[in-house]
Amino acid sequence: MDMDQNLDFDRYDRIRPIRWRGSHLELLDQRKLPFAVEYVECADSRSVGTAIRDLVVRGAPAIGIAAAFGVVLAARTIEAADGAQALERMAADIDELNRSRPTAVNLMWAIARMRRALAGAGADWRERIEQEALAIEREDLAANRHMGVLGAGLIVPGSGVLTHCNTGSLATAGFGTALGVIRAGVASHRIDRVFASETRPWLQGARLTVWELREDGIPATLIADAAGAHLMKSGAVQWLIVGADRICANGDTANKIGTYTHAIAARHHGVRVMVVAPSSTVDMATPDGSHIHIEERDGSELLAVSGQRTVAEGVSAFNPVFDVTPAGLIDAIVTEKGVIEHPDARKMAALFAG
Amino acid sequence: MDMDQNLDFDRYDRIRPIRWRGSHLELLDQRKLPFAVEYVECADSRSVGTAIRDLVVRGAPAIGIAAAFGVVLAARTIEAADGAQALERMAADIDELNRSRPTAVNLMWAIARMRRALAGAGADWRERIEQEALAIEREDLAANRHMGVLGAGLIVPGSGVLTHCNTGSLATAGFGTALGVIRAGVASHRIDRVFASETRPWLQGARLTVWELREDGIPATLIADAAGAHLMKSGAVQWLIVGADRICANGDTANKIGTYTHAIAARHHGVRVMVVAPSSTVDMATPDGSHIHIEERDGSELLAVSGQRTVAEGVSAFNPVFDVTPAGLIDAIVTEKGVIEHPDARKMAALFAG
Repeated sequence: MDMDQNLDFDRYDRIRPIRWRGSHLELLDQRKLPFAVEYVECADSRSVGTAIRDLVVRGAPAIGIAAAFGVVLAARTIEAADGAQALERMAADIDELNRSRPTAVNLMWAIARMRRALAGAGADWRERIEQEALAIEREDLAANRHMGVLGAGLIVPGSGVLTHCNTGSLATAGFGTALGVIRAGVASHRIDRVFASETRPWLQGARLTVWELREDGIPATLIADAAGAHLMKSGAVQWLIVGADRICANGDTANKIGTYTHAIAARHHGVRVMVVAPSSTVDMATPDGSHIHIEERDGSELLAVSGQRTVAEGVSAFNPVFDVTPAGLIDAIVTEKGVIEHPDARKMAALFAG
Repeated sequence: MDMDQNLDFDRYDRIRPIRWRGSHLELLDQRKLPFAVEYVECADSRSVGTAIRDLVVRGAPAIGIAAAFGVVLAARTIEAADGAQALERMAADIDELNRSRPTAVNLMWAIARMRRALAGAGADWRERIEQEALAIEREDLAANRHMGVLGAGLIVPGSGVLTHCNTGSLATAGFGTALGVIRAGVASHRIDRVFASETRPWLQGARLTVWELREDGIPATLIADAAGAHLMKSGAVQWLIVGADRICANGDTANKIGTYTHAIAARHHGVRVMVVAPSSTVDMATPDGSHIHIEERDGSELLAVSGQRTVAEGVSAFNPVFDVTPAGLIDAIVTEKGVIEHPDARKMAALFAG
């Protein structure tokens, strides 16, 4: 089946988390969704870094794109004869952007790509890096559409799927990674049941994913994170489909806290696990998951919900916001460069080395 | 080590979810904890049933005790020459109490015990059933204290534990089941790290468990439900210790949604699983977990947190509030009658048949 021919990708284009306006960057404030659709204006690189840190924008690919435009904004504050000189004068601003979140490698990947573009640029360096940032955004969207088709092709008709966190238009330049596969799978009648886990503490599943899918007319059923194993036991889902914040050289994958929990339950029940991420998420310099820096955020995120305190004073919390799913629990990694089933270091190297 | 001698049980007696006042029943409103300590007054059996259904009182043993006093209150509305006649005249009220929650067998157990007391009572039937309800409460507390000592005895010093939901004083006549083991384990220096998962959607872990433990000076660290596997992988916990709402004849155990998820992750990491429940939770008439009625509550409980809506309109949710952990994933069932390691139908029958 030639799904590319049948899928009207443009109908999924309404949600835009990142809007480049030439003079400034607009970021959809994802902390306020689904009840308010408001954009935060960032006129300099520092405000982009703050927006990334404070979760105005989140999702590994979206963070990378926002940071790329942050570099473009950093350039507005300096004068330089060529790219190499600009790179030197913007070093502090770029470093700060690079440190705004630690786990998603797309951030470091986008910054590195912007640095390379600068290093090779002459007098037209300003135009070159703006074009580079726009290319990063455009390529992400294209990658997502291609991955949607590749991933959906793995799913047999009549399947149910569970996804975790938000990996949709909001987390990317558009269409989404895991959610792109789900969109393509629903459009091609392979998927007929979609479940989303709410994803504490930020509730990206509850606030963002089911809202995005509803906007597309795809009914999704929300579950508590803890209900994943019970759902799988019921036979309602055949695939767990998730995104990634970093995929190591051996296929180990960091993703939103709870992905590993779901993946263990999936293996226990014979539910297959699909990780969907663009090659910008692949980090061949990190040999395996034990080397990934797992971000721990303030415990206060667990002590309140939507700003309302739920826990007694004097209580502490442990709040890791990612976990690592080892390659051995993953049935397929889907990237725009191709699909790796039962990933390992050899297969990863064959697709991504060099 | 003779822990009974060393443990000052009375210091754990401050929290009382159920207070029988002779003329009426007072139930600590657990929906308002930890920010308000308020009791709901129940003067008739119908209001007790409503309080059980609406989660004013929750926790399998506490539900049973509250229902027993509900029967005492039902008796206040009728006249009868003896217990058998009273039983007949109270049948509708008792049936309604019996249906107030479906999964915790302690409710049906307590009602059956009250019915037996009535059936055998003469002219003093009013006094007899009040004494029976008080005995149910008293025996639950004694069982919890004994289980605490038995369960803690399984734990080697220096251990960390994870618990789920609330199984403490609030869920019982006092001291708690799984939380009783944790109290005894901390007091006897076997446990030095306690983690509690928040337990969506009602947040019993976040609102109740860490509050109860803080009241006792036991520091506990809150985690998101989805962080269980990551925590276990870190090596911080050696035991998952949970309560039960129903234990079947083969050892399969229904408990709060997420228990099964944690138990699968525990097995994956070599973390041991302890289920702590009084024999009133054992249901030898239910052969295995597939026969347990798993309560599904309204999806709206997942669409809001503490009354504040978090999910877009038009989204549906699947909200099972219990799951079944098969006996094969359980390392020890601790009851006041003794401990069963690696439970199966034969061992269960040896301890509980007849």
